[in-house]
Order: sequence, then C-alpha cells, then structure tokens
Amino acid sequence: MAKLTSRSEDYSKWYNELVVKADLAENSGVRGCMVIKPYGYAIWEKMRDEMDKKFKETGHVNAYFPLFVPKSLFEAEEKNAEGFAKECAVVTHYRLKTDPDNPHKLIVDPDAKLEEELIVRPTSEAIIWNTYKNWIQSYRDLPILINQWANVVRWEMRTRLFLRTAEFLWQEGHTAHATKDEAVEEAEKMNKVYADFAENFMAMPVIQGLKTPSERFAGADETYCIEALMQDGKALQAGTSHFLGQNFAKAFDVKFTNKEGKIEYAWATSWGTSTRLMGALIMTHSDDFGLVLPPTLAPIQVVIVPIFKGEEQLDQISEVALDIQAKLKAKGISVKFDNDTHNKPGWKFAEYELKGVPVRIAIGPKDLENKSVEIARRDNLTKETHSIEGLDSYIDELLKTIQKDLYNRALNFRKDNITKADTYEEFKKVLEEKGGFIYAHWDGTAEEEEQIKEETKATIRCIPLDDDVEAGISLISGKPSQRRVLFAKAY
Amino acid sequence: MAKLTSRSEDYSKWYNELVVKADLAENSGVRGCMVIKPYGYAIWEKMRDEMDKKFKETGHVNAYFPLFVPKSLFEAEEKNAEGFAKECAVVTHYRLKTDPDNPHKLIVDPDAKLEEELIVRPTSEAIIWNTYKNWIQSYRDLPILINQWANVVRWEMRTRLFLRTAEFLWQEGHTAHATKDEAVEEAEKMNKVYADFAENFMAMPVIQGLKTPSERFAGADETYCIEALMQDGKALQAGTSHFLGQNFAKAFDVKFTNKEGKIEYAWATSWGTSTRLMGALIMTHSDDFGLVLPPTLAPIQVVIVPIFKGEEQLDQISEVALDIQAKLKAKGISVKFDNDTHNKPGWKFAEYELKGVPVRIAIGPKDLENKSVEIARRDNLTKETHSIEGLDSYIDELLKTIQKDLYNRALNFRKDNITKADTYEEFKKVLEEKGGFIYAHWDGTAEEEEQIKEETKATIRCIPLDDDVEAGISLISGKPSQRRVLFAKAY
Repeated sequence: MAKLTSRSEDYSKWYNELVVKADLAENSGVRGCMVIKPYGYAIWEKMRDEMDKKFKETGHVNAYFPLFVPKSLFEAEEKNAEGFAKECAVVTHYRLKTDPDNPHKLIVDPDAKLEEELIVRPTSEAIIWNTYKNWIQSYRDLPILINQWANVVRWEMRTRLFLRTAEFLWQEGHTAHATKDEAVEEAEKMNKVYADFAENFMAMPVIQGLKTPSERFAGADETYCIEALMQDGKALQAGTSHFLGQNFAKAFDVKFTNKEGKIEYAWATSWGTSTRLMGALIMTHSDDFGLVLPPTLAPIQVVIVPIFKGEEQLDQISEVALDIQAKLKAKGISVKFDNDTHNKPGWKFAEYELKGVPVRIAIGPKDLENKSVEIARRDNLTKETHSIEGLDSYIDELLKTIQKDLYNRALNFRKDNITKADTYEEFKKVLEEKGGFIYAHWDGTAEEEEQIKEETKATIRCIPLDDDVEAGISLISGKPSQRRVLFAKAY
Repeated sequence: MAKLTSRSEDYSKWYNELVVKADLAENSGVRGCMVIKPYGYAIWEKMRDEMDKKFKETGHVNAYFPLFVPKSLFEAEEKNAEGFAKECAVVTHYRLKTDPDNPHKLIVDPDAKLEEELIVRPTSEAIIWNTYKNWIQSYRDLPILINQWANVVRWEMRTRLFLRTAEFLWQEGHTAHATKDEAVEEAEKMNKVYADFAENFMAMPVIQGLKTPSERFAGADETYCIEALMQDGKALQAGTSHFLGQNFAKAFDVKFTNKEGKIEYAWATSWGTSTRLMGALIMTHSDDFGLVLPPTLAPIQVVIVPIFKGEEQLDQISEVALDIQAKLKAKGISVKFDNDTHNKPGWKFAEYELKGVPVRIAIGPKDLENKSVEIARRDNLTKETHSIEGLDSYIDELLKTIQKDLYNRALNFRKDNITKADTYEEFKKVLEEKGGFIYAHWDGTAEEEEQIKEETKATIRCIPLDDDVEAGISLISGKPSQRRVLFAKAY
C-alpha cells in the first residue's frame, strides 16, 4: 500500500488521496458526482442518526417532498431563484427512443418534451412552501417543524469529493411559525443544535455567528452558521440555519388567521447540513497516516489484530481475542477481530491506521504469556501494554479520553490560529504567512467586505455571536466598528 | 371530519381518501410526484429501519451512488435500457437564465446544454456496475454485498399515491459474486428476507415465486418475487429479487481472476422494495373507519384519551394517565397521551381510528373510581374494561395478539380468495365474480400468457416456489402442465 502524500507536501493532494484510499468516496462516471463507498457511508449514517435524534428531541418530524421543482415554482421567490438558477440541472424530456441511425443507441425523444421544465432541487423551500400553502390556515396549524433527508443537485463547475459535489446528501429543516420571534428562536436553536453536534460528536470546535448580508442564503433575512477551522488554516462552513422572514410565505401566498383573528403571512426558517461534514471531519483530525476518527463516529471503534505463526498460535490467540471482543461488545463498543490469514499484521496495522480506527489491540504469543495486550491509540500514535484483566473498562474509558483529546487538540489548534489584526497591512501579512481565522474590524459595508475579498480572497466567515465585543476602527475605511468579525479564506 | 367513502361503495376512492385523510401522503405540485407527510413517513421509517437491520444481519452494507446515469451508460445493457427508456426523466441543461422578455421569469439557457444527456435513475444497475468495474479484479474482491436507500424516477403516465408515482423512495441491493450458484443463492435469500419482513412486520401474508420470462425485470435472467393479495381481490407485487446472470458484467466489462487463475465475468443480483409497500400495508388491513396498523409499524402504538369535564377532572385523570404512559414506555411501547382541550373525546376517537393507532385507552371519572380503564382495539373495534393494576403487561401482550390476529385475518382472507380453476371458462367466471388469486395450469408459452392477459387482464403473478405440485392441462392450449401457477389482476 503506497503511502499518502504528506500534508506539508501538498495538502489538497493528501486530502484527495485519503478520501479514496480510506474507502470513503470516489469520483463516479457522472461529472461532479461522487460514489460514497460503504466505509464512508457508514460514518455518514452515524452522523445522520445522531443529528436525526437531536432533531426529533427538539420536536421535529421527518417527511419527504419531490425531487423536482417546476420552473414556475422555482422562480416564485426571486432572490432564491436568482441564487440557484446558474447552477441547476434541468429536466426537459420524459422519454428516450431508439436512434434511427443506430439500433444500439438511444436518443432523446423530441415528442416527449415536458410542457414545463423541472429543476432538480438545489434546495426545497419552493416545493415545500407551495405545499405548506395547503396545510396552513390557522395559528392552530402552526408551528410546522419538518425535516427532510434528501439528495440535492447544484451544478458546481469545480468539484471536490465531499466538499463540493454536483449531487450531495443533506438534511434540510423547513419550519413555519405564527410569529417572527418564534421563527428567529427556531433558527437560533437549530444553529446551536449543529454546534452541539459538531463539538460533541465530530470533536470539531466551531464558532457560531451570523453571516453578513452578502454571504446570506439566497432568500434569507438572516443566516446563522457554524464555522470550523481546517488544518491548512482555511475555514469551512459546517452548517447554516436561516431566518427566512415572510419571504417564502409571500412568494407562495401562505396566510393564516392569527389568535386575534387577523390574516397574516407565516414566518419561516430553513437549516441544513450535508455530506460536506465528512470533508470537515477528515480535515479536522486526520494525519499523514490516514483518517483519524472520533470514537463516536467510528464504524469500528476497536480492532483486534492477532500476531501469530501457524494455526495453533492463531487458535490460542483467537480464544482470548473473542473473549475480549465479547466483553467490549457488552459495553456497546464496536469491535472487529481481524483473523484474516492472507494479510500480514504490518499490512493490517497500516490499513486500520488509514481507516482511522481509534484503538488497535495487538495480541501475540508473548502477550498471552504475560496475560496482557498491546494497545495503540490512533489519535496520537502512542502504544502501551495493558493486562487483559480489566481491559474492557480501560478501553471504554480510553475511547472517551480519545474523544476529549481530539476535541482539545482541534481547539488548541484553532486557538493558535486565531489572530487579531488591527491594520489592513497586518491582516494581509497574517493571511499570507499564517492563514487561519483573523479577528478584525469591519465597517459594516458591502464595499469594504468586497474589496477585502477581491484583494485577499478572505471573506467574512461570520459575525460571532459570543460576548467578546471590542470597539475599533475598520480595516480599510477606518470607520468605527463595534466588534471584530471573523475573516478567513474558506472552502 | 367527513367519513371516508366505504370500500364497498368505491374501493379506489376509499384508498385515495384514506391516504390523504390519515395524513400519509398527498399529491404535489409536480405531476405524478407525491409528498410523503410526517405520519406516513414515520411508518416508512419503521419499515426502512427494520429492513435495513435485516440487510445488515445478512452481511450487506449501505453505500450511495449518483442520481444521474449518463446516456452512454444507460444504454449499455440493452434489455435494461429498453425496459426503462420509455419512461425516464432526462436532464439536458445545467443552467437557467433570466427571460429577456420578462425579468421576473427564468428560461433554460440554450448555452448550457450538456454534452451528454443524463437520465435520472429509474434503477441503478448501470451506474453501479460501471463503478464495480474498478472494484473487482480478483475473486478476493468478491462478493460485494451493497444496498442503497434512494429515490428513483419512472415517468409513469397514470399515477396513484404510493402505488405508482413518478418519483418513489426505495432500497436497491446490488451484489456481485464469483459464481453463478452464489448469485442465485443470494437472490433467493433476499426474496426470503422480503417475505419474512412482509409477514412478520407488515402482518401481510405473501406467496413467494418466480416471474415468467415476460414479467421479469428488464435485464434479469430470473426474477423472484413476493405477491400479496389486497382486500379488493387484486394482487400486489411487494418486492422483487433478480438473478442478473453476467448481463451487467458483460455490458460493463466487469471481469475478475477466479481461484483457478482464469478470467471470468462477475455474477450479479439486484433486489428492491419501495414506498409501494405503504400501499400494500394500507390495502391489507384498513377498513371503512381508516387505517389499521400492525403494532410493529405503528408510530403511536397506544393512545390515551381522557374523558373529562373541567380542569380538575383533567388533572386527576392526567396523574393516572401519565403513570400508565410511563409504565408502557418502560416496556418499549410508544404512547401518546392526548390531553388537548380543544378537541372533544369523540373527535379524538375518530381521529385515532383514522390514523390506525392499534390500542386506545380511555379514562373517565368513573374509571378512576373503579381503578380501571376502557381499552379499544383498532383492528376488530372491540372494547373491554381492564383494571389499572397490571395494565402495562396486559397491553404488551395485547399488542402481540393484535399483530398475530392481523396476520391471521389477512391469511384467512387470502385462503378464502384463492381458487383453483381447471377450465378457461371457470377461470374467467371466478375472475369476474370473485377476483382474488387463481391457481391454474399454464402451458409455459408467452403466447398463452399474453392471450389470457389480453382477454381477462389477469397476469401470471408468479410460479410459486412451494411444493404444491400437481400436473394438469393448460387453460387454453390444453397442453400438459407440471404445476399450477398463480394468476390475478394486479396493481
């Protein structure tokens, strides 16, 4: 198995190689679309199940809406339509026929043109609010708290596995409320749910904030987000939650009778996370040996590798290994005992390092004599010997320790890579030499934001929601600013 | 709440009304596509989770493949292509632009025409076998046992909620094997998994069999199926499992080195079930009052309805109800306590009957005095009184009894509606007067099958796999037949 390109050599190449070699995903025969391979999908399933649980705990239910959006519905909310029109897949026909020039080929049947073109959903506000119109008459019908797990298509020109693909998997929450306050509260709540998931399950620290008007979701009045910092000093938007005001209610004429008997437009939110989180997970923790997974999201948490010569030794080791496996399973830990005789232990070690299995237990004949095993941590690559006695409790604790350590390591990395810059010169210097997040003052105008973006490629990732407020002078215009905002180059 | 049309009055209308009124699904703004509403989706989620568990227990893993199939891949396996070409959605463009004649409208941008058209997957053999080509070199890479949960599109002209929709949700297993025997075994195994799920979770008896060549999946060498009988005497194909031979391996050039060092084409299966199962579930158990759900698939298994006048009574009842709820939950039973004060108990009774909640517990002031409750079964509409003491264990058992009773009721219905017909006259008479399954002799030719279909609309649902073999004379040609096959009109 050829080694990965190292991160310092070529970060982007390292990422692409890791995704493919760790069996997470690969490019498909369709431009920009990926195949999510079983091992990658197993991690996504864990993310999905955990988020789904959190959505249900916060009162949401799942539903499913059509893949296609008729053009007339798609264009109803103009800002939203404008935001997605340039990169959408359009279905124009509903039949193929045999090519008259070649009986082995098919061509689009010109007689099967749709009366109205269908857009493959890039996001579902339009189709969902067209449905909500029939569901909402009275304040008693509100709130509607629905989530959907689905595939969406955005015809991006430059794609990268997980980070930016023409088709991706995601969840999209779409809620309707009787009051503005309630909708704002919902958008804030779901952004916090995302932050909680990112930090406690992905072991990935995030900064919660608000997008600037120019970075908002097309059709939103306010966009909340969680922003994470990758190892190469670039930011990654890991989830967004939008307060949509009454924009979609007005576009789709969704009115209701409020408690006072007056007719009002409904208030909306939408919020989403996608398979992009897989990219964030990889670039938060992994190293030159491959994937590093937090135990909460690892399909295999512990692998047991026997070191043996001949069948007799394998039998002896197996007996002990199976007993350890059973005890760990009883604690709810997922364990693989790799007793394959084709691959050598060294190959297996490298393979499970590449796959990011958090804990490896190696057992050889000497270990049997000593009634101990060798334990290797994937996160920091340390090894230790532990007696078989009490091993299950020790591993159980160790997995929790690894989870915490991964979070803290990522948090320390972020701390080391947040810089305050007070002048534009300093800002540019930090950006070039170090990268990372830069806290700086901004005058609140789209002009200054755009100039900085054009000149440095750094964007305002968010206006943080924390209490760290400090007045100052903006980078270019020198106008007063009430708080620093978070800049970075971003994925 | 207006009553449903009764089944005897208009079965088809009853079905459509029930699906909408029980909040399962509704038609959307997109021709032929449905919205699966939260209550319907919750049932589908239970089906999905249970099937997913069974797939994993039988060694399968999930993955995800692209939504789009480039035309050149789509047409590679000619029989498969021919089978789906007439009803597929075709993406031809990747961008919209503002209509020069109307700034509020969008039009397809003629400059954004795809070089190659993309078919929205009607099934994924093509895209998956094009991927497997790169995964399979040696017998060591086999078997590949993958399942995918996805949406697919088949541009059907006449659609009905759940039963036949342009877009539907499904799972599709796609496996690759080193030998023919192993692939056949897999196809048979998965058909049995479907039968097990249908009978033990949906409480829906099925007949396992083989499709005739003319009813096979396009591109399959053999199609296994499970066939269920609906209350109106029509059959419904509830799942299919295909032995695909080497057809897709040859179309996509998927070869491997076998144990003997020889190059061979891989052997394939595929198998699928879809949201169509929701239609089967409804038409197996439900009645004129609404949905009837087997406890295993009911999102709410027990509802507690308080009968009260004034807040004080409600408080007293609530105390007892919450205690019952807690005890039932501790047994893993999902319980809703409906203490809403807006709707009257009578309205609630009708509502939960419509929604198919298996058990209703009503508690009024007299019940409190007697330390008892009223229990109503949804399946047979019987009521009884039971002491609060020991109620949790009683309900736990009752749910199991309901599950069994539903299965047996459906099984008895099927027994009463399978008729043996020995002459074509008799066959037509039974079909017209009674419907249901008809066991009859067939000469094995496509001609006789086609003639019967044209003249009676009955098709051969399957050649059963059971041992009930009995020689005879075929219906029309009078040729000898070794066993009866199963005919019916079908959904």
